[in-house]
Parts: sequence; structure tokens; C-alpha cells
Amino acid sequence: MSTVKAAVLTAYEQPLEMREFPSLTAAGPGEAVVRVEIAGICGTDVHLWLGQLNVPLPVILGHETVGRLEVIGAGLTQDWRGNPLAVGDRVAWASSIVCGECYYCRVKRQPTRCLTRKAYGISYCADTAPHLRGGYAEQIHLRAGTAIFRLPESLSSDAVVGAGCALATAIHGLERCPVEWGDTVIVQGTGPVGLAAIAVAKQAGATKILAIGGPPHRLVLAREFGADEVIDIGVVTDAGERQRLALAFAGGYGADVVIECVGYPNAVNEGIELPRDGGKFLVLGQYANAGNISFNPHTITRKQLVVQGSWGFEPRHVDRGLRMLEIPHWQHLFANEITARFPLAEANRALETVKNWSAGKTVLIP
Amino acid sequence: MSTVKAAVLTAYEQPLEMREFPSLTAAGPGEAVVRVEIAGICGTDVHLWLGQLNVPLPVILGHETVGRLEVIGAGLTQDWRGNPLAVGDRVAWASSIVCGECYYCRVKRQPTRCLTRKAYGISYCADTAPHLRGGYAEQIHLRAGTAIFRLPESLSSDAVVGAGCALATAIHGLERCPVEWGDTVIVQGTGPVGLAAIAVAKQAGATKILAIGGPPHRLVLAREFGADEVIDIGVVTDAGERQRLALAFAGGYGADVVIECVGYPNAVNEGIELPRDGGKFLVLGQYANAGNISFNPHTITRKQLVVQGSWGFEPRHVDRGLRMLEIPHWQHLFANEITARFPLAEANRALETVKNWSAGKTVLIP
Amino acid sequence: MSTVKAAVLTAYEQPLEMREFPSLTAAGPGEAVVRVEIAGICGTDVHLWLGQLNVPLPVILGHETVGRLEVIGAGLTQDWRGNPLAVGDRVAWASSIVCGECYYCRVKRQPTRCLTRKAYGISYCADTAPHLRGGYAEQIHLRAGTAIFRLPESLSSDAVVGAGCALATAIHGLERCPVEWGDTVIVQGTGPVGLAAIAVAKQAGATKILAIGGPPHRLVLAREFGADEVIDIGVVTDAGERQRLALAFAGGYGADVVIECVGYPNAVNEGIELPRDGGKFLVLGQYANAGNISFNPHTITRKQLVVQGSWGFEPRHVDRGLRMLEIPHWQHLFANEITARFPLAEANRALETVKNWSAGKTVLIP
Amino acid sequence: MSTVKAAVLTAYEQPLEMREFPSLTAAGPGEAVVRVEIAGICGTDVHLWLGQLNVPLPVILGHETVGRLEVIGAGLTQDWRGNPLAVGDRVAWASSIVCGECYYCRVKRQPTRCLTRKAYGISYCADTAPHLRGGYAEQIHLRAGTAIFRLPESLSSDAVVGAGCALATAIHGLERCPVEWGDTVIVQGTGPVGLAAIAVAKQAGATKILAIGGPPHRLVLAREFGADEVIDIGVVTDAGERQRLALAFAGGYGADVVIECVGYPNAVNEGIELPRDGGKFLVLGQYANAGNISFNPHTITRKQLVVQGSWGFEPRHVDRGLRMLEIPHWQHLFANEITARFPLAEANRALETVKNWSAGKTVLIP
Repeated sequence: MSTVKAAVLTAYEQPLEMREFPSLTAAGPGEAVVRVEIAGICGTDVHLWLGQLNVPLPVILGHETVGRLEVIGAGLTQDWRGNPLAVGDRVAWASSIVCGECYYCRVKRQPTRCLTRKAYGISYCADTAPHLRGGYAEQIHLRAGTAIFRLPESLSSDAVVGAGCALATAIHGLERCPVEWGDTVIVQGTGPVGLAAIAVAKQAGATKILAIGGPPHRLVLAREFGADEVIDIGVVTDAGERQRLALAFAGGYGADVVIECVGYPNAVNEGIELPRDGGKFLVLGQYANAGNISFNPHTITRKQLVVQGSWGFEPRHVDRGLRMLEIPHWQHLFANEITARFPLAEANRALETVKNWSAGKTVLIP
Repeated sequence: MSTVKAAVLTAYEQPLEMREFPSLTAAGPGEAVVRVEIAGICGTDVHLWLGQLNVPLPVILGHETVGRLEVIGAGLTQDWRGNPLAVGDRVAWASSIVCGECYYCRVKRQPTRCLTRKAYGISYCADTAPHLRGGYAEQIHLRAGTAIFRLPESLSSDAVVGAGCALATAIHGLERCPVEWGDTVIVQGTGPVGLAAIAVAKQAGATKILAIGGPPHRLVLAREFGADEVIDIGVVTDAGERQRLALAFAGGYGADVVIECVGYPNAVNEGIELPRDGGKFLVLGQYANAGNISFNPHTITRKQLVVQGSWGFEPRHVDRGLRMLEIPHWQHLFANEITARFPLAEANRALETVKNWSAGKTVLIP
Repeated sequence: MSTVKAAVLTAYEQPLEMREFPSLTAAGPGEAVVRVEIAGICGTDVHLWLGQLNVPLPVILGHETVGRLEVIGAGLTQDWRGNPLAVGDRVAWASSIVCGECYYCRVKRQPTRCLTRKAYGISYCADTAPHLRGGYAEQIHLRAGTAIFRLPESLSSDAVVGAGCALATAIHGLERCPVEWGDTVIVQGTGPVGLAAIAVAKQAGATKILAIGGPPHRLVLAREFGADEVIDIGVVTDAGERQRLALAFAGGYGADVVIECVGYPNAVNEGIELPRDGGKFLVLGQYANAGNISFNPHTITRKQLVVQGSWGFEPRHVDRGLRMLEIPHWQHLFANEITARFPLAEANRALETVKNWSAGKTVLIP
Repeated sequence: MSTVKAAVLTAYEQPLEMREFPSLTAAGPGEAVVRVEIAGICGTDVHLWLGQLNVPLPVILGHETVGRLEVIGAGLTQDWRGNPLAVGDRVAWASSIVCGECYYCRVKRQPTRCLTRKAYGISYCADTAPHLRGGYAEQIHLRAGTAIFRLPESLSSDAVVGAGCALATAIHGLERCPVEWGDTVIVQGTGPVGLAAIAVAKQAGATKILAIGGPPHRLVLAREFGADEVIDIGVVTDAGERQRLALAFAGGYGADVVIECVGYPNAVNEGIELPRDGGKFLVLGQYANAGNISFNPHTITRKQLVVQGSWGFEPRHVDRGLRMLEIPHWQHLFANEITARFPLAEANRALETVKNWSAGKTVLIP
């Protein structure tokens, strides 16, 4: 029996294990098997590795993946957009599947809060057949109902994985908390989500963008993505001083939209003073529960803010992101965000690279 | 020279002093002099009395007032709605005047955050002529540019002052954070703003309303105003238990809109768990800076909430409130909210009544 | 073999034929068989009868139906809201099924414009098994994917069919073109959609509602549903005079929202002058193509109107309507809208009643 | 006494007359006198010249003007943005003044529909002192309350007048009918408003823009402004064929937003078929009443369109436009739109140039 390799998280804070699983040669109705070409490593993978989110170990990590269709199940004739699908097609897909039937999916139209949402690379135990449900592997098995997108030839796999889940996350966040053309925008954080937020704000017509983040190599990327100015948190280490600089950038009163893409809870305290009165504050980075802060709610009333949360994304945000990547300017930038490539066998080194912020985007090439 | 009496805040936490000022018999261009008929006592007046907000002492308190025009300055021919004005007309007015020219008034259309906004009964020193710029007095002098509303005969002064600034505050808040018809709504707090929020939510078509507050006599009012259920914070003293009851009321997932009208900062922590995912949380009560809380910003992202602040109100919210009071149902309820009337000379007893929450709405009859 | 009866449209403008079909005793996966209790007759059925819309004859008419579950197919365990389903449950359902996969369903989230939408009582040929796909029958067969709603005991079938598809249509329309609380609203037309529009506008807090319609017995209903004033088009026969009266009702400048529920194209010309400048005009009644009018587009620019169209409804609008009907006030009114009941065998007399506007709502009791 | 020259419309369809008026050397409180540097000729000026809009003859035309402050009245210390004003400052201004007090200004916040709005170059009779209230003159007198904008040195007068009132008109229109980033947009008309609409749509992030217009030299401009494709109405003369091409451009279903900037009423019929179902149609061009069309209102319902009107603009749209022009890309394009310059004495030749569409933007240099 033929086998495929996968890098498996078997215990938190321990190295991923290379395991072999039976190669998949068949797919049930609506299902598909994909030969992985490139798999992105997301900051969330580091959180999972460190045990900061609870998952059903062992898990094959990897929720940012591009590959080619090897097996197509009965009835799977079209991609999410209605394009015909054939073996050999290069595809990407939304990392989550929702039930489409629960209170949040149906009545309140908040499918990202589906009561039974499951994500590739996160929610599936590798001990259960078909095992291969994460991107750090040579093959991946897609459930029926997965939102698959056939990639046009003009769109490189590097751009798609370079953008990763960060772009769809930013698109969803800015849909809930829109940037209007001409707005002044401040983005806190220059990780993948922060860069994607800069890109979406720029595409939406923001005319002044400040990025607060680091390290320096990411601030270079931030400028390339559209930031007019940057503040290096390694240089300006005092939050109050950063606030003064940011308000000065924004003309004294504050920005129209501030987008928090940091993850550290205190970034919310730093950021909430940066919108102008009546402005908007998008809290995009507090995906993990990192604990409490000392917070003054009077600020919300006094500044009559809109403080907006956003969680994950829907297939239509992936669709919109892939369309954005067809614009050569963005395709080039997101593809170039990839600065570190590792074979599957070196998945642990790749994870370390992401943990240490020592690269732009890091990917595995199985 | 004829004089008029006024109750003046001369020192924080000290009894108001009854003082006499020269009676006003003339008004400059666009100005007006009003003979006060009834003046509401707002919870903010207690905060002012206790020195929790900084004001230019001595101050004549009172920003919820109805009276009759005694003198009309040159050029003041119409009220805010375009109705002709004549001496003897019964009028109310927006308590604040904004510049109409600053960044917030013009460019960002956030006039409640006008950089030079001034409010009757709060921002004017009584030592400066024309002295009479608060409602706790026999006369009040209105500046040019005040948004005056001639009251129709069918609209009682009791209803207007019973609604007070709370109704316009709630209307503004729910304009920024709208209740849709059919929504499930939770209102935290059953003071004047809480009752007004219940009323506006009901008028907007909310079909399930829960009020969390007290004491019991105010919960009776809350039910009259439209609450389907109430939770008495004096009975259910544990915040976690209140949350469990409130979520059960809201069908398990939470309310579509939660409106905080309490003022204690921890009410924000209690309330932020009560909207359903993707729901809205209106922070209306944190008007004063009452300090920090221990807060978990992850909640905003995870529940993809809209957390909305709102500050004060504009003349158009007063207009909308007065129109709402023309509906007999609301006029009756807001007028009946007044359960304590004092002569001007007993202003201190009146303030105590409000401080102790021992009445519905308390008013002065100069 | 047991049979069930159905009234079938076999040729336009000809009497419906009573036919017998094999009684259904089994259902495929996700499907259901319902014993019809009550079937509403919609104005659209008259249009179908008269051949004004193209349908695959022969067709069993009827898209407003309540019945009890007789057979439940494998996997159909819950209704649209997640309530468990059992044989004997009384149910209603959304009349249309959409693909969920096309450009309009997915990318643009306009499922009412689904490219392959099919409606019970309209889109299914009765010659094709399982034949029973309309409400004018003793049984109806529901396809997998039908949005079924289990009716609570407190909600009468009369109210559900009295509201019919008109209520969901109005809810959808007013979702796209919202009435805000306090708005002045003019509703053109007092058929089922007009009455439902009045009800939704009232529930949304409109404080002044004018209905323009007839005949007199429907204007009585219009007042009961919430109209403050009515104009009888049989009395005020001149459109210009009706416009003058309507503008006077709306304070001279026009209404905040005008809702056209008439169907005659010239109602659009009459109605478009009735919103105030910057107001909204919901064109809800032009469901059928009834030809061209002489129209001046300058009005749209000059009055800076929002002219909004809306087509059909989604399951969530049915859900919202059924919740609205749980309010006793509305349940009572919509149930009482039914003033004519016919046995299935008299379906032709029932259709005539609707065609002649000689009843409120007309229903069949199979 | 010193005099200044002005080109005056004294009779419709007759050549403008050069007249002399007393030079202005003083200004009342809040007023200003400006030495005109450059005055744009708007298509509306041609309509005025031809008598298609009623104005109080004689009128000095010209409502797109840049000049330098010569006299500043008492109290006029700041421009609309709060910048200090001094004699010699180069300024532009909003062409209209509104009352700020009427039903539309206050209650409904639709100031462009102010009941007493007056525009420079249109609404002022030149026989009445101070006479100089139009841009086709050496001097212009600005009323108190005019929204004046001091121009930064980096912003050329050519760009400001090249953009003219068209840019503010487009900004207002797209505020009411927003383009979202990623949208497919079709612009009908390539006059100044059409080009400005292309620019605003592009700045707002539209990713596919089609322009339908002519003559060829304007289609070149349309491409420079951001159109990806153009249809020349002089080449594709059949409206149905243009619709087929436009729908093909938009992927078959239609555009997300269609913007009519033509003026001929039948453009509305051509354009209304071009949005996708659930899309938006902005009717921006029907500023003048050019009569009726044969129109099918069924289209609005069936396609569940938003058809949006928009009238003129407010000072904040001028503000936003001037900020947009500070972006070098747009400044360059709008400045280069000027291809014909005439001295004041040749105002009639300049008007002919605009009437004949034989130039880009035409201006007078007094």
C-alpha cells in the first residue's frame, strides 16, 4: 500500500512527528483528494503548537494550502464560483466548513460563529480516517461542502499562500468595519493580518495609513503594502509615546479607522485612543484569549466609538481575496511576502521561524 | 430693580444657595428670556453637586426645563422647526449649543463632540452676566443659536421634563446602534436613561425586552414602559446569575441589542456577554469617568460584537423625542414618571431625592 | 390504490380541473408529505390563471399552505429553526427553493434572484411525479431543502395563511427599504401586500401612515392594520388630487417612505412624487411585467430619492413573519383578514372571489 | 471710480455681454472679495445660456472659480477647515449657500435640497449690488457663510477648476450610492461628471470600470482616469448593442454599480438594465428636466435594484474633493483635463467650445 507523509502535532510544545498515512485514491460523494503543493504556516499554528488553543491531538496542522486535484468524488463538478473542476486543476479552499443550518448560520447570518464549524489543520484528529485533514502533508482530503476555488493560471500559488488566511480575515474585518476612500487609517501590528489590513485599507482608498509594528524587516513590507509612515515598537517602546506620534500622524484628533492586528490584549488599550471621536476601532487581533487588561469603558461613550469585532471569514471573503490577488500589484506583494521555504521534513524549523518572527511568510513545500 | 431667584451650586457637596439676580427684561439679537415653569433634576446634577465633573462654580444647575417666552430678541422669529415664536409661547430647548464650525461639527459631522460645546445648567458661571443660564431659577436666558422648540398645546410640560435629557440621549444612542423590529433587547439600568431606552426600543418594534435594574418602584416603571421581564439587582445580587437569567430570557445565545444605561463601569463587563454573537452592545451609561475595570478584549473578537458609544444628543434628537411624546401612550408614561415636585427653595431636598433613588423623576416648580 | 384530489390549472383562463393523483405514502431523503389543512389564494394565482405569467401546465396552484406532516423522509429531523419534526406536526414552509450555489445565491447574496429558483404552486408540472407540488390539493410533497417551519400551538393556521406570502414579501421589501421609528409612511394599495406593508411599517414604529386604496371594505382593514388615514381611489379618482391629499397628509414635503403595492405601472408615477426629497420609494408591487409608463427620470435626481426594488423573500423572512404573528395583535388581524372559505371542489369560485376583490383573504379548506 | 469687467448673460441664446461694474474695495461682516484667477465653464453654463433653466437675468455666469482674497470682511478669520485666512490667499469655495434652518437643512439633513439655496453664477442678478456674484469676471463677491477653502501651495488652480463642480457632484453621488472595493462599475457619460465618477470609483477601489461615452478624445481621458474599457457611442450607435457589450464586460449578470452621467433621459433606460440583480444604479445626470421616457417599472422590482438620485453637493464634498486632488495622480489628471483657455473677453468662444464638446475642460483666465 502506498503511503503519504504528514507532519503531526502529537503533543503540545513537542516537535511535530513525521508520520505516514495510507495514500488516498478514492473520494466519496462531493469529496476530493488534493496533492499539496505548498502549505503556509500561520501564527495560529504556533499557538496550536504551544497548546494555547485546545485541539483533538494528534492533528496535522496547516490551514493555508494550495494543491492539485487528484481525486474528485461523485457530484463534485464545480468549484464555489461555478467553474468546472477536473483532475489536475490547481485549487485552494476555505479552511472552515459550517453547518448552514444552525441559529448563527441561518437566522442571524453569522456563519463564522456556526455552532459546529470545523477547520482543516485544526479541528480534525489525525487518528480518524481519512486522517489527512491538514496542509502539512503530501495529500489532503476535502470534505463534501468544502468551498473549493479553482485557481486561474495567472494567479500564483505563492501569492495565494502568501496572503494565507490573513487576507480573508482582514477582508471580513473591514467588511464589518469599512474603510471609506479618503480615510486616515492606523494599523496596529505588522504580522500577516496587519499587512493584509494595510492592503485592504489601501485598496479601499485610504489616503493616509500608519503602521505600528516591527521588527524592521516587516516595517519595510508594511511600507510596500501601502503604509505612508511606520512606528517601530522596538524603537518607540513607550505606548504613550506611540499614541502621541500616531495622533500627530492623524492630524491631532485621531484616525477614521484603527485596526488592531496585534494579539496582545494591551494593544486594545493603546489603540482605543487612536480613533477620532465618532471613529471606528476594529479589534481583529484578539483571536486567542490572552487574558484581561485594565480598561476604561468611559472612552467608548465619550469618544462615541464603534468598536467592532470580527471572527474568521466566510468563503465569499476567500473569493474576494483571490480576486484581489489577480491585481498584479497585490499578487506581487503577497507572493513576495514569502521569504522562507522548507521541505515538509523540516516543519519544525519552519514553525520556529514563524515563532521567532525571523521571516516574512514561511511555507512548506511537501 | 426687580430680581429673580435661583438655586446656585457654589461649592461641591455643599447645599445649593438661593441667590437673587437682576430680573432680565431685554434680550440681544437672537436671544430670549424664558420664565421657568418646571425644571427637571437629572442624575448628572447629582454628579455635578458631588464634584465628579468639573464646572465653573458658581453654577445654576438645571438643563431640563420648560417655560414661557418673556422676551424675544431681534431676529428670533422662528423655533428650530420653523414655527413662529411669540411672547407667552411655552417652549423647551436643546441643552447644548455647538459651534457648527469645528472639525467635529463640520468635517466629521459629530457635533456632540464639538470642541467648544456648552450646556445650560453646566457650563456657565453664574457670576457672569446675564447670570441666568440654568433651569433651577425663575428665569433663564437663552443664547442666540439655541435650538428652541415651541410646544404644542397637546403636549404637557410634565411629559417633556419627565422625559428630560434621558429621552434625547436614548434616541441618539439607538440611532447609532439601532434596534430593528422583532429584536430581543436587554436594557441594563432603570434610571431615566434606561426607561427611555426601553421606550425607544419598544417604539422601534422590539418584541422581547428585559430590564435589569432597581429598586422595585423603578422596575414597575420599566414594565410600564415596555419591559416584558425584569431582574431586580437588589434581589439577584450576583452578576453571573443575572447573566444566566438574561441569556435564558434571550433564548440562550443572547440578545440582538444590549443597552448599558447604568454608569458603574463593571456593568460593561456584565453586559458585554449578553449580546448574541454578531450582536450589538450600546455603552450609553459611561458618561462620567468612573475608573477602570478588568476587561477581556477577546470577547469583542470572538463574539464579533459591535460595541457602540454615544455622547449626548443633537437638536434633531430633541425634535424626535418631542414628536414621540405626542403619542399619547408615551406622553402619559413620561409625565407619570414624575413622582416628586418641590418648590425652588427646596432644591436641596429635591437633589437628595434623586441621589437616593427614592422617586421616579423629581422636578422643581419655581 | 388510494388517491388524493387536487385542483389543476390545465389551460389559461379555463376553470381549474379537479384531478386525482396517487396518494403519497413515502418520501425520499429530506423530503416530506403534508396533509393540507388550509391553502391561501394569492393574487398571483389569478395572474397565473389568466396566463399573465408563463408556467409549465398543468400546474396545481397554491403557494400559501398549512398542513400536517404525514410522512417524513430520512434525515429530515429538524425544521428550519432547529425544532424537531414529527409526523402530525402542523407546519408551514417557504414557497421557494433556491440552489444555494449560483452567482446570486453565493457571491452576491441575492438568493431571491437564484438562477434556478422554483416555487410550489407555480413552477412544477403536475404531470411529473410526485405530481403534488401545489397547495390546492389534499396532499403536497415537499422537496429536500424546503424551509419547513413547525407552527407553535399558539399560532393559528388562519393567521399564517391570512398573512400568506404577502407578509414575507413586505418584510423583505422593508428590510431593503427600512422604515425608521417615527417615520411618516404612505402605502399605495390595500391588497394583501399593502396591508402587510402597513403592519410591518407600524411594527417598525411608523407614527403616521396613510393608505391609498380600495374598495371600502379593504380600507376598513387598512385602518385596523394601522393606517391613520385612508384615501379611497374609488372616491378620489384623480391621481393628481390623490397626490395633493397625500402630500398634505405628509406635512407638505412628502413622506419619509412610500411603499407601492399596487401592481399597475402608473402607480409608480403617482407614488414617486410622494416621498420628501431624500426620501425612499419602495417599488414592491411591480411583480408582473405590466408594460411601460411615461416617466420623468429627472424626479429621481432632483428629489435625490432612493427607489428600491425587492423580489419575493427568503426563508428568514418567513421566519420573521411567523414570529411577528406570535404577537396577538397581529395574529388576530391577519387571521381575521380571511373572510371567504371554500372547499377544494369550489376552487374556481374561490379564484373568482379574489379576482373580483370581493373578499378580504380567500382560502381553500381541502 | 475703478471698474472690473464681467461677461454677463443678458438674454438666452444671445452672446454674453462684456460689462463693467464698480470695483469692490470693501466687504461686510463675514464677506470677502476675491480677484478671479481662473474660472471653469461647466456644461450647466451652456444649459443656462440656452435658457433651459430659469435664472434672474442678467447673470454673471461661472460657479467654478479660483482666486485670491483681496478684501476680507470683519469676523472672517478662518476658512471652512479652520485655517486662518489672509489677504492674498488663494481660495476656492462651495458654489452654493444654504440656509441651515429649513426642514431640509435641519430636520432631514438634506441641505442640497435647502428651500432657499442660492448658487454663485446662477442665482444672483447682476443688476443688484454688489453685482459680482459669478466667476466670469475679474472680481467676485462672496457672501457671509460661503464655505471658503484656502488652497495649499501644492494644489494647483488648474486641478481645482479642472475638477470643477463635477468632482464634488460625483463624490456626493457616490456617497449616497457607494462603490465598494472590488466592484465592477459602469459609467455612462464621459463629460466632466462621468470622468469624475470614474476617478471616485477608482479611488474607492473598483477593479473593473467600463465607460460608455464619447467623442474619442474624451474616451482617451476616460482610460487615463481609470476606465479599463470604453464604448464609443459614436461607433456603437445602437443602445441594445451597447447593453450587450456592457453586460459582457460585467461578466454577464451586470455591474455592481452603474452611474448615469449623461443627461439625456433615455440613458436611464439604457443604464437600468446594466446592474446585476440586487445592484445599484446612480442617476446623477438628470439634473435638468429633459422630459419623459417610456419606462418599465417592473425592472426595478424584478432586479431588486437600488435606484439612487443625488443633487448637487455640500461643502464637505468640496472638502473631500480638494483632499483627493492633493493625491498627485489625481491632481495631474484633473489639471490636464483643461485643454482650452480663453481670456474673459472671449467667453462666448469658450462657451461654444463646451457646447460642441470640442475640448476637455474649458476655462477663462480673466
